[in-house]
Amino acid sequence: MLIMREAYYGTTRFDDFADRVGITEAVAAVRLRELAEAGLLERWPYQEPGQRTRFEYRLTDRGRDLMPVVLGLFEWGAKHVLPGGRASLDLSHADCGAPVHAEVRCADGHEVRLDERGASQGPRGSAT
Amino acid sequence: MLIMREAYYGTTRFDDFADRVGITEAVAAVRLRELAEAGLLERWPYQEPGQRTRFEYRLTDRGRDLMPVVLGLFEWGAKHVLPGGRASLDLSHADCGAPVHAEVRCADGHEVRLDERGASQGPRGSAT
Repeated sequence: MLIMREAYYGTTRFDDFADRVGITEAVAAVRLRELAEAGLLERWPYQEPGQRTRFEYRLTDRGRDLMPVVLGLFEWGAKHVLPGGRASLDLSHADCGAPVHAEVRCADGHEVRLDERGASQGPRGSAT
Repeated sequence: MLIMREAYYGTTRFDDFADRVGITEAVAAVRLRELAEAGLLERWPYQEPGQRTRFEYRLTDRGRDLMPVVLGLFEWGAKHVLPGGRASLDLSHADCGAPVHAEVRCADGHEVRLDERGASQGPRGSAT
């Protein structure tokens, strides 16, 4: 979860994941391998002049599409489990700088709220 | 997960949860109790004329706020794990009937996409 959040922040390099998540390189290596095996991240070699080959981990479509889930869980945790704690979300829209959050909308762009019976089961006009 | 999805569909009654999720009453009782203990659902007694007291399970704020996570996970599963399978999401907006999905937006209402470097870490104009 913390590594995926870092990936959404734009982190790609192995060393940066370990530093920013605050885990050892050994733990980062295991976690990143697991996420790559799950198809959420992809491992790419890169090399800076005069350095040995290193690896970066880029989000796949599968990993990118999981963003509402991961961010939604951090958001939920920050509100209901650890207010103000480490679980807080710290992500803003690159274009306008406004804070980012996960939400539920319909395909026509309306925000869906459950407290006003905002959603119902089934496709348009049918019942399952 | 399946019980929470049913709750988002508007199901509240014990019998309906068991029937619609397709689990035995014994399993439904255990799962609903766990979700109530986790604070996601709240147990309320109700009684129809001439019937014994029964229970319904209503979403709490904590449970309602988890909707982007649960729906997002079903949506992700339907796309990446079981296309067309049981994990598919079947929820539409009560007002307009358009299908509902989980997404990431900024507080100013812009949809955030990672593939165009849509998000960056930290609050407006600062770095962490």
